[in-house]
Order: sequence, then structure tokens, then C-alpha cells
Amino acid sequence: MEQHLSLFYGLSILIAAIAFAFAAYLYVWVKRQPLENQKIIEVAGLIRNGANTFMSREYKILAVFAGVIAVLILLFLPSPIWKSDIFSNIGMAVSYIAGTVLSAIAGKVGILVASLSNGRSAEAAKKGIKPAFLIGFRGGAVMGLLVVGCSVLGVAAVLWIVGDASILLGFSFGASSLALFAKAGGGIFTKTADVAADLTGKVELGIAEDDPRNPAVIADNVGDNVGDVAGMGADLFDSNVAAMTSAIVIAQSLAGGAYNNVSMVFCYGILGLLASIIGIATARIGKNGSPTNALNSSTYVTTGIFMVLTALATYFFPGFSWRIWGAATVGLLVGVIIGITTDYFTDDSKPIVKKCANASKSGPAFTILSGVSYGFISSMPAMVGIAISALAAYKICEPMGPGYAIFGISMAAVGMLSIVGMIISNDAYGPIVDNARGLAEMGDLGEETIRIADELDSAGNTVKAVTKGFSISAAGLTVISLLGAFMSEVNAHLIASGAEPITGFDIMDPTVFFGILIGASIPAVFSAMLILGVDKNAQRMVAEIHRQFKEIVGLREGDPSAKPEYDKCIDIATTGSLRELIPAGLMSILATIAVGIIGGAKAVGGFLLGNIVSGLLLALFMSNAGGLWDNSKKYVEAGNEGGKGSEAHKAAVIGDTVGDPFKDTAGPSINTQITVVSLVASLLSAVFAAFSIFG
Amino acid sequence: MEQHLSLFYGLSILIAAIAFAFAAYLYVWVKRQPLENQKIIEVAGLIRNGANTFMSREYKILAVFAGVIAVLILLFLPSPIWKSDIFSNIGMAVSYIAGTVLSAIAGKVGILVASLSNGRSAEAAKKGIKPAFLIGFRGGAVMGLLVVGCSVLGVAAVLWIVGDASILLGFSFGASSLALFAKAGGGIFTKTADVAADLTGKVELGIAEDDPRNPAVIADNVGDNVGDVAGMGADLFDSNVAAMTSAIVIAQSLAGGAYNNVSMVFCYGILGLLASIIGIATARIGKNGSPTNALNSSTYVTTGIFMVLTALATYFFPGFSWRIWGAATVGLLVGVIIGITTDYFTDDSKPIVKKCANASKSGPAFTILSGVSYGFISSMPAMVGIAISALAAYKICEPMGPGYAIFGISMAAVGMLSIVGMIISNDAYGPIVDNARGLAEMGDLGEETIRIADELDSAGNTVKAVTKGFSISAAGLTVISLLGAFMSEVNAHLIASGAEPITGFDIMDPTVFFGILIGASIPAVFSAMLILGVDKNAQRMVAEIHRQFKEIVGLREGDPSAKPEYDKCIDIATTGSLRELIPAGLMSILATIAVGIIGGAKAVGGFLLGNIVSGLLLALFMSNAGGLWDNSKKYVEAGNEGGKGSEAHKAAVIGDTVGDPFKDTAGPSINTQITVVSLVASLLSAVFAAFSIFG
Repeated sequence: MEQHLSLFYGLSILIAAIAFAFAAYLYVWVKRQPLENQKIIEVAGLIRNGANTFMSREYKILAVFAGVIAVLILLFLPSPIWKSDIFSNIGMAVSYIAGTVLSAIAGKVGILVASLSNGRSAEAAKKGIKPAFLIGFRGGAVMGLLVVGCSVLGVAAVLWIVGDASILLGFSFGASSLALFAKAGGGIFTKTADVAADLTGKVELGIAEDDPRNPAVIADNVGDNVGDVAGMGADLFDSNVAAMTSAIVIAQSLAGGAYNNVSMVFCYGILGLLASIIGIATARIGKNGSPTNALNSSTYVTTGIFMVLTALATYFFPGFSWRIWGAATVGLLVGVIIGITTDYFTDDSKPIVKKCANASKSGPAFTILSGVSYGFISSMPAMVGIAISALAAYKICEPMGPGYAIFGISMAAVGMLSIVGMIISNDAYGPIVDNARGLAEMGDLGEETIRIADELDSAGNTVKAVTKGFSISAAGLTVISLLGAFMSEVNAHLIASGAEPITGFDIMDPTVFFGILIGASIPAVFSAMLILGVDKNAQRMVAEIHRQFKEIVGLREGDPSAKPEYDKCIDIATTGSLRELIPAGLMSILATIAVGIIGGAKAVGGFLLGNIVSGLLLALFMSNAGGLWDNSKKYVEAGNEGGKGSEAHKAAVIGDTVGDPFKDTAGPSINTQITVVSLVASLLSAVFAAFSIFG
Repeated sequence: MEQHLSLFYGLSILIAAIAFAFAAYLYVWVKRQPLENQKIIEVAGLIRNGANTFMSREYKILAVFAGVIAVLILLFLPSPIWKSDIFSNIGMAVSYIAGTVLSAIAGKVGILVASLSNGRSAEAAKKGIKPAFLIGFRGGAVMGLLVVGCSVLGVAAVLWIVGDASILLGFSFGASSLALFAKAGGGIFTKTADVAADLTGKVELGIAEDDPRNPAVIADNVGDNVGDVAGMGADLFDSNVAAMTSAIVIAQSLAGGAYNNVSMVFCYGILGLLASIIGIATARIGKNGSPTNALNSSTYVTTGIFMVLTALATYFFPGFSWRIWGAATVGLLVGVIIGITTDYFTDDSKPIVKKCANASKSGPAFTILSGVSYGFISSMPAMVGIAISALAAYKICEPMGPGYAIFGISMAAVGMLSIVGMIISNDAYGPIVDNARGLAEMGDLGEETIRIADELDSAGNTVKAVTKGFSISAAGLTVISLLGAFMSEVNAHLIASGAEPITGFDIMDPTVFFGILIGASIPAVFSAMLILGVDKNAQRMVAEIHRQFKEIVGLREGDPSAKPEYDKCIDIATTGSLRELIPAGLMSILATIAVGIIGGAKAVGGFLLGNIVSGLLLALFMSNAGGLWDNSKKYVEAGNEGGKGSEAHKAAVIGDTVGDPFKDTAGPSINTQITVVSLVASLLSAVFAAFSIFG
């Protein structure tokens, strides 16, 4: 049996290597595409440099943060160093660092490729939609392949070396803490720049959105890559690692067949990566085909391939269960369905966006009320979908024996995340073609090229809504299985100390209930802190822009020799975003610890549940309402309800401004907040199991 | 022991009679106050007639609705009529009707008195703040006394006659279904009129808010009474009855001492009413004292009296427990503390309102973002407070034996609601002095009188925030104990059919989890339906106003012989509000039933929990954000951040418009939605215990 597992470790590393090789091929392919327009080369260079500035500033701060955490882990986890063997502690600290480093590498390379692809995609659009699409998609695919490759590689390597799933929690926590910086920090960064550029440029100076005189304009363009490429990548790296980790933790606690079950987790991870490689390699559009269809059909192809491959694996490998296959398949299918329902609420060819645009005719208050209402309603299908998939996975796997039902849920999460390579590719495609559209305009590539770039961009927006719904739901299922992992960890400690293991978290138990209510309020406060953080940080950047206009002679007048200091703005956005993020992250973590100390392990279980429930609700609400407002504004700008410049347009713009930090800062960061908190709980399970005031 | 209980039945009825007598005295006292100004008499008469129109329309529709439900109850509850003794079914149907009728009477009389008090309070303001305050306060107190008197009387009478707490659930459900109409329907009514009056009056015609030419203007004034007097009264009647009912249901299921425990519930109810009577009778302000202090100090006096009286009762009555007294006291104190923290977020002398007003200088999007953020944050103290009081009550009562811990929580809810007579008095005071202020202006009572009326009004707004936080939290504790009542009911059925009783709702059980996720999405969808309903209904009224301006000759020009048809607008607001409300209410109820049929009793337990958690979060968020925006606007209008007419003012007005349906329609209706769903679950517990697809 042990050998069986070693086979999958080996295969994991092999397939990850293939994914890396394929990513390298795509990288070289993208780099070879022609880029001749001088204006595009110049601006794309500025964006690339800006992204690099951001990355180096961010990683510098992160290195300090990760270093401190690593030392804390070394001293205290899995148990205080003076009580445990030192190798466990070293193992966990090292795997924590490995988690942050792998995620950072994937993010760094992803942004690098994205910033190479945007200009080339714009230039290719001169020749038609087909080559332009391919460059945008393949640029994004590098990130997708890297993220999944790194997660499969990392999980396999850590487990192979240390053999203990608890240590894997350290790796997952590393991935999570980086995701918190990349996603929430990146979200604050991108909206800081956006808001500051708009307030000073459009409002105060009356210059266009992309006017290069504005010192914030490069930061604004960098922001798209930072939030959607690096942020989304780190977020899904985090979810994918967490899903595999929790499945493995639960699998190791199962009586009998543990190795087969761990093998299955790796097998599904590997086959998901393989399916994504095939899906990416075959993605194409016809000469005049629709890019949206191309993106969606690649997703469906990947889904189909994954299901067939896992079915074959289940058929051929002894000890693989069809029930587990069923659970994973349910997870995957529900993920796709949730993506489609999300699309219904945010797509401007569907009725909801039109209703919101129509409400804007009565004024901005009605835009807001309409968006808030439909945002609330939109959370329901996804909540129901997650509920059904968890229930179905549980019921399918329950007959396998005690503990298998929860394992089934964790495999539904693994299944939902199996095609994550494809999802990230689609998602990273968005900001690339978004930038390409801007560059096509700046480079004067002509009307037809801009029209093509527009079409590519619009496909990116549509697909983005789907991938966002998907990633929130995947995080939802993952954290449910993390709850299972938490219980396994607590019980391991309880049994080791001779105490009775806990059998569950009863909501009629007031310590559990206590935890639930407090846990439910955390995502609300966390979101609020991020949104307020964007505001504060934007004010800092506005002050810097004012300084530059005052001190740099000729800048305001457009004197070509007067260069704005773009780097200063990027610096402010970076440092400020981390400064605003850290209190929000600490608040969540300290609340977890406080609840645990007051109410013990059961209160923490309740806390995690409350956190998941209100987190999912608010994340879905904010992401979808934000997407809805964004597309309503675009719908009005396309000439409906009075078109550009009308009162409805002004109202729709206000809706969009409210929606921006909803959908790009707070909403998608909640995922990460929930995962971080769940992992902190699992890591500290020994403490909560041993001591509490009322528990 | 039975005799002991009879004593409390008798006392309940006696004290309720004293409360009614005192209310009658106050009614006569208010009616005797002079009212001479002809203009005030005329407008106050229009408002009174409008309120009557609303009441008769609403009660007509309600009677049909209640009749249908009563027949359904008669046929199917507590168990199908062909399986049970017919007397239980008749008892439950009759007590259901009694619940609706008592609530309706309290609402009707309350509105009647409020509409007598407003003009008299305005006129008394000529003589100074002291008499004007007293009329406003005593007018509101009639409602407070009636609501609590009716609830104590009703619960005692039903239980005395039928002796079975399950039948009491029918009475409580009657109170809840009326509250749903009064609170949510009233909420839609008031905002429909408000929005339609603003859109046609201020925006289209450029006439003042209270211009009598506008056919919607009386509906708008009626709305304040409908929402805040009748709605709030029905809401707290509902909570109070539900708290007592669930405490009694749980007490009856306790082994040993059940009668003592039921006696304690009545004793606390009676003493709370007595304390409120004393508090109301002694409420005064000095000649130049502050009305806010007068209102708050009456609340503190009532709280103190209640604690002393219940301590004496515990000391003197054999079998009364100090632990239960502790639980009730914790509930009451936490209620007061939550009220104070709510005040911090919505009072314009505190920093949060100022920050939101300051954000308005950057435009309406920032007003919204600031309000949403602080609204989110404001939910936390109340959630933590409820969590702590539930945990403390549980821990205090746990040593008394199995089942007592949950009984402790239900007594914390009873304790929190004990001073509800005082709370309602304070709350109903608000719209009375609000109307008085408008009437003082219309009646040209002079600057000094208007200044006094202003001061009274502002005290009403401040106190309103506190009472809203209080009532949401009380509902929170009540529904927790309703969850306990639900489990008692399910187990009674399971034991009767020879099955194993359930011991709790484990969140790791996927049917529970399934319920939780779906339950959590219901308050979001319910709120969205109400908000969208306001919008749709307002459009209907706008169409009617346009018709009248077109068809009634001379109306637009202000010809005194051209009378607008105020009643038509009131009619539209009434019928439309019920039309919009019913789908939202049905959605909640049908979702409960669907979850029960799919997942059984455990799923319903989870559903109720999810509903409570997200309901509390959203109710607190919406109420507080709405209050914050309202007061930010007032703060700007008082001359800050640019004052009236500035850009900041325009932005603050948009915030206030968004906040209106948040705080007056959706937010406070969620309480009622949660209670209705909890009672439906308890009523149908036999069905869920007997049959489900996956349970």
C-alpha cells in the first residue's frame, strides 16, 4: 500500500513537471510574438516596471511577515518546541515557508507573462481575432498551469518528505497567508489606484482616464494585473492546496484504506491538472468565432476529460471507490452550474442588468437599491448549490463507513477545484485583454483592431463573473472540509491526552452557538475594514498626486520633459494596502484565538461555521452586486436608458464606484479570510483542546 | 402546585386589567388636552382618517388571510383532524385567531391615540417643553401598555383554558402573522408613500415636502404612524408572546418543577408590566430638562424596578430559582448595553455619523461605502452581546439539571423583553412628536414653539436607534429559545411514536449543514423582495398622482376648491404593500417546508439557525446603516460639511434615500420573518419528525 502511495507522489511530481514545461513553452511562444508599435512598447514597459515595483515592495514586506510567522511556528507548532520533537517544528516551519514561496513564484511569473502578453495581443488584433485571442489566453494559461502545478507538487513533496498530514497544514497556511496579501492587499491596491486616478484626473483636472500626465495612471493599470492575475492565482492556489490538505488530513484519520484514500486525493489532483493541460492545449476559436464560446467550451471540455479520466482511474486502480468518484463529480458539476447562475445576474444580455440600468433613471439611490437587492437574491442559488453538493457528497459516501461522509465532502471540494487550472487561465485572460484594449487605443491601431480588442475584453468580463462565482463556491466547500479537518485534529489531541473525542458541534450547545454568532460577524467587519482601507489609502495617493503637480514643473501643462514619478504612486498603493490589510487580517486571527480561549474547541467549531455561512453570503452578495453595477454602467454606456452623459449614466457610474471595492476588494478577499481562519484554528487545535475558560 | 400556577394566571389577568385601566386613563387624559388651532385640527383629522383607511383596508385583507390560515390549522394542526381529538384543533385555530385579534386591537388603539396626541402635543409646545413632552410620551405609552397587557393576558388566558403549551404556539403564530403584515407591510407602505411623494412633489413639481396639493402627502404622514406605532407595536407584541411561549414550551418539557418554572415565566411577565406601569407613571422632565434624558432615565428606572421586584419574588416564592433570576437579569442588562452601542453608530454627536458626513464630500458613492462599512461593523457589538448573554444564561442555569440551560436562555429573552412596555412607549413617542413638529409648522405656532417641537423630535430619533437595536437583539434571543422549543416539540412527537429523541443539531451532520446554508440565504432574499416591492409600489402611486393632477381641474394650480383624493393614494399604498409582502412571506414559509421535507427535522433545525444568524447580521446592518445615513444627512443639514444645498448634502440625501427602505422596511421586518419561520417549524414539527426524503 505504501508503494501505491509512492507511485502517486512520483506521478504528482512528474505531471507537475510536465505542466511547468508546457507553461515554459507557452511563455516562450508568447514572447516570440511580434511587438513593434513604439507607443505600445513604451506604455507596456511602464506597466511591467510598475508591476515589478509592486511585487518587490510587496514581497519585501511579506518576507518579514512570513519570517516572523515561521519563527512562531518553529517555537510553538505543532506543539511547543520544549514539549515536542524538534523535527516536527522544523518541518512545519519549512513547509510554511515553502507554501508562501511557491505561491509567490506562481504569482510573480504569472504577472510577468501577463505583462508580456497584453501588448502582443493588441498588436495581433490587427491580424484578426484568432491570433489575438490565442495570445491573451495562452498568457493567462501560464499562470493557470503554474498555480496548479505548484500546488500538486508542493502537497506531494511535503507529504512525501514528512509523511504527516498535520505538517501539511503548515504548507497550506503558508499558501493562505500569501493569498491574504495578494488578494486582499492586491484588492486594496487596485482600487486605491483606481479611485485616486479618477478623483484627481477625471474630477479635478478634467483629463481622460488614461492620461499619462496623471502619476496614478500606471498604478491603475498595474492594479488590474495585481488584483486579477496575481490575486486570483494566489487565491485559487490557496483553495486548491487547502482542499487537498483537508482531504488528506481527513483521509489519514479514517480507519482502514487511509492510503488508498490519500492516493485518490493525489490521483484526482493529477488528473485535474492533466485535463487542464489538454483543455488549454486545445483551446481555439474559429476565424470569426466567439471568444466567450471558446473560453466556455474549453471549460466544458476540461470538465468532461476530468470525469472520464477519473472514472478510468477508479475502474483500474484497486481500492478506488466509485462513491468517491460520485462525490467529486457532484462537486465539479455543481461548480459549473453555480458559475452559470452567477452569469445570469451579471451578464448584460440577461434581464437583471437591464433592470438595474432602468432603475438608474430614477437616480443613484435606486441604482444602489436595485443592485443591493439583486445582489442579495443572487446569493441564494449558489448557497443552495453548495448545500446540495455537500449533502449529496455526504450521502453518497456515508455507506463507506464512519468518517467517510466528511471525506466525501472534501472530495467534492477537490472535484470542484480539479479544473482550477482552466479556471485561472480564463480568469487571467481578462486583465490581459483588458490592458490590450487600452494599449490598442493608445497605439492608434485603428477602429477594426479596437473593435476586436473590445470583443475579446467583453468575453473576459463575462467569463470573470463565472469564475468568481466558481471560486467562491469552491472555497465554500473547501472550508466545510477544513471544518472536518479541524475536528480530526482536535480529536487527535484529545485522544492523545486520554480525553473523550468530540463527536460534533451541536448548535444547541451554547459554546458552539456563542462561536457561531461571533464568527458570523467577522466577515462583515473584515469587509468593512478593507473598504474603509481603500478610502484612506486613496486619500494618501491623492495627496501625493497633488504634491507632484505642484513640485514637478511643466507636468500639469503636459511638457514632454516633465515626467511624473509613477513609482511613488505605486509605492504608496503597495505600502498603504498592506498597512490597511494587516489590522483586518489580525482582527480575524485574534478573534479566532479569543473565541477558542473563551469557549474551547467547540466554540471554535461554531466560529468557523458562522464565518463560513456569513462569509459565503457576503462574498456572493458583494461580488455579484459589484459585477451587476459594472455591467449596468456598460449597458447604459452602450446607448441604453439615455446613454453616456445622461442622468441614468451618472447614476450608473455611482453604482459602479460603490461596486468596485465590493467586487474587487472585499468580496473576493472573504474567501481567503475564511481559509486563513480555518487553518489557524486547525494549527492551534492542541491549544483549544487543552484549555479554555468556559469550554 | 397547580394552585400556585392558577395564582399567576389570576395575577396576570389582574395586572393586565390594571394596565388597560391605566391606558384608558392616559387616553382620556390626552383627549382632554386642548386643541384649538383650526389648521392643525384639519390636517390632524386628515392624517387620522388616512390611518383609519389604512387600518380598515389592511384588516379586511388580513381577515381573509387569517381565516384561510385558521381553517388550515383547524384541519391539520397540531395533527390532522382525522387523527387527533377535534378539540386540540379547535383550540389551536381559536388561539391563532385570538393572537391576531389582540395584536390588531393593540395596533388600532395605538394608532388612534397617536393620531390624537400629535396635534395636542404641538399646541402644548406653546406653553413649554414640559407639557408637550408629556402628551407625546403618554400618547405613546397607551400603545406600550396595551401591547404588553394584551400579551400577558393572552398567554395566560390561552394556557389557563387549554393547559397545553403546544396550543400556545398557535396564539404566538397569530401574533407573528399579524406582525408580518403590520411591520413588513407597514414598512412597504410608509416607504412607498415617502418615495412617491418625493419623486412627484420635490422632483417633478418642485413643491415642498408637505404641500397639501400632493395627493401622496397624507399617505406619507400616515406612513410614520403605520410603520413606527402599529408596526413596532405588533413586532414587539410578537417577540414578547414568542419569548413567553417558547419559555413555557421548554418549561413544560422539563423534568420536575415544571409548574414552578411556568409560574416564573408569568411572574416575570407580570412584574415587567408592573415595572413599566411605574416607569410610565413617573416619567417627567423638568421645566428646561432634556427629553432624551427623561426617556432614557425612565428606561433605567423601569429596569431597576424590574430587577428589584423579581429579586423579591425569587426570595419570597418557594421554588423560584436565583439562577433563573440571574439569567433574566443578564438578558435585560445586555439588552440595555446593546441599545447604547447602537446609539454610538447612529447618534450625530458621536464620531461615526460625522465620518460618514465627511465622506459625502467626495460624492455619493463614498457616502454609500462609508455607511455600508460602518453598518457592517455596527453589527458586531450586538452579535457579541447576544452571544455572551446566551452563553452566560446557559452556564448560569446548567447546574439546575438537564434542559434547564436552554430554559435559562429563554428566560434571558423574557428578561430582555420584560421592559418592553417602556420600550414601546419610547418608540411610539417618536412619530407622535415627529408629526407634532410638522403640525406646529403648518399651524404657524411661532418660532419658539417649533424649536421646542424640534427638540422633542430629535430626542425621538435618538431614542429610536436604541429601541431598534434593543428589539432586534430581543428577537435574536427569542428565536434561540424558539429553536429550543422546536426541539422540544420534535422530541415530543418522536417519543410519542416510539422513536429516539434527537439530542441536538450537529453542524457536521450534512442535513443540518444543508439547512443552515439555505436558511442563511432566506433573510437576504426576503429583504431584497421587500426593497424591490417598495420600488414597484411607489411606481404605482406615482402613476395615480399623475392621473389626479391630470384629471382634477385646478389641483396643480392650488385652487382651494380642487381637493386631491388622498384616500386613493392610501388605498394604493395599502393594497400594494400587501401584494408585495405576500410573496416574500410565502417564500420564507415554503422554503421552511421544502427544507423540512427534503432533510427532516434536523435540516429544519439548521435552517432556523442559518436564518437567525444571517437574519441578525442583516437586520443590524440595515437598521444601523439606515439610521447612520439619516442622521448624517441631518448633520449636514445642520450646517456641517457645506450644509444644505452643497454637494455633500446631495450625496447625503442619496445615502438617506438608500437607507430609508433599509431601516424602515427590510431591516426591522427580518425579526418578524425569523419568528414566523421558527413558529411554522414548531407547528409543523410532527410532519418533519415523521417524514423526510434524506433526513
